[in-house]
Amino acid sequence: MTGRLRPGEVVLEGAPDPDGPRLRPIGRIRSPWGPGDCPRNIGRARETGRPARIDLDPAFAPALAGLQVGQPVILLYWMDRARRDLLVQAPRHVTEPRGTFALRSPNRPNTISQATVRITAIDPDSATIGIDAIDCFDNTPLLDIKPWLETVDLPPR
Amino acid sequence: MTGRLRPGEVVLEGAPDPDGPRLRPIGRIRSPWGPGDCPRNIGRARETGRPARIDLDPAFAPALAGLQVGQPVILLYWMDRARRDLLVQAPRHVTEPRGTFALRSPNRPNTISQATVRITAIDPDSATIGIDAIDCFDNTPLLDIKPWLETVDLPPR
Repeated sequence: MTGRLRPGEVVLEGAPDPDGPRLRPIGRIRSPWGPGDCPRNIGRARETGRPARIDLDPAFAPALAGLQVGQPVILLYWMDRARRDLLVQAPRHVTEPRGTFALRSPNRPNTISQATVRITAIDPDSATIGIDAIDCFDNTPLLDIKPWLETVDLPPR
Repeated sequence: MTGRLRPGEVVLEGAPDPDGPRLRPIGRIRSPWGPGDCPRNIGRARETGRPARIDLDPAFAPALAGLQVGQPVILLYWMDRARRDLLVQAPRHVTEPRGTFALRSPNRPNTISQATVRITAIDPDSATIGIDAIDCFDNTPLLDIKPWLETVDLPPR
């Protein structure tokens, strides 16, 4: 995906198309959001009080065994409308352009975003999972669900 | 990838090959570990006191602008020797088989692992980044570097 650049933005030039492993979406995130009204981050999404849902591909329902309502999980999802060629970006909320790896922008070489959310419901029969909030468009492809673990996911002291 | 199953393990049967977007590795994680001596998780890796390094593809060096030594970052990396077909797993450290999405096992539909590490050095000229520890094999493909943010990466209250 290409498009207009803001002042100071730098693009990866002349790179071949991505030729690494292929992803397998495991379902879709069903959110209240589309272009134009999507909260800028998970904190803002939470403030709206609007929950969200995962529609898991039913083939993966057995992989939910052991997850609990109330548990925090990390979701990885594929931002399918984002750019993969931006090295330096100038989002509106930062004062000067910054490297992609110093930002949580969806625009990155692999457009994987992640959020730590709380499970509010699990229905293995319909393969749906309620979550407290999310900050992506409706129907965003889901890549993974991981249990959030204090021993792994907090920064080292 | 296939192989022997442990009692209670369940495999995804008859699924087509992954046909989603292709990943673009951005570099390699250089670690002291190989098969046979790799710590089971980042906590154990940290206890060894052995640091690690990222060798970034130099094309992505501009994307480091704004990262700071001492900063915690999330690394996403591709566990290229793990299985993508396990729905229920029986790792040695759990008492009964558990769904893949309730585990941090590298075996999952998309074999993306993640760790929150601290940056110990940044050299934009050589496109290398020192990190305090890592729990993957030497030369594991790196997919992303994201700043760890308290407002995004802590579970909601």
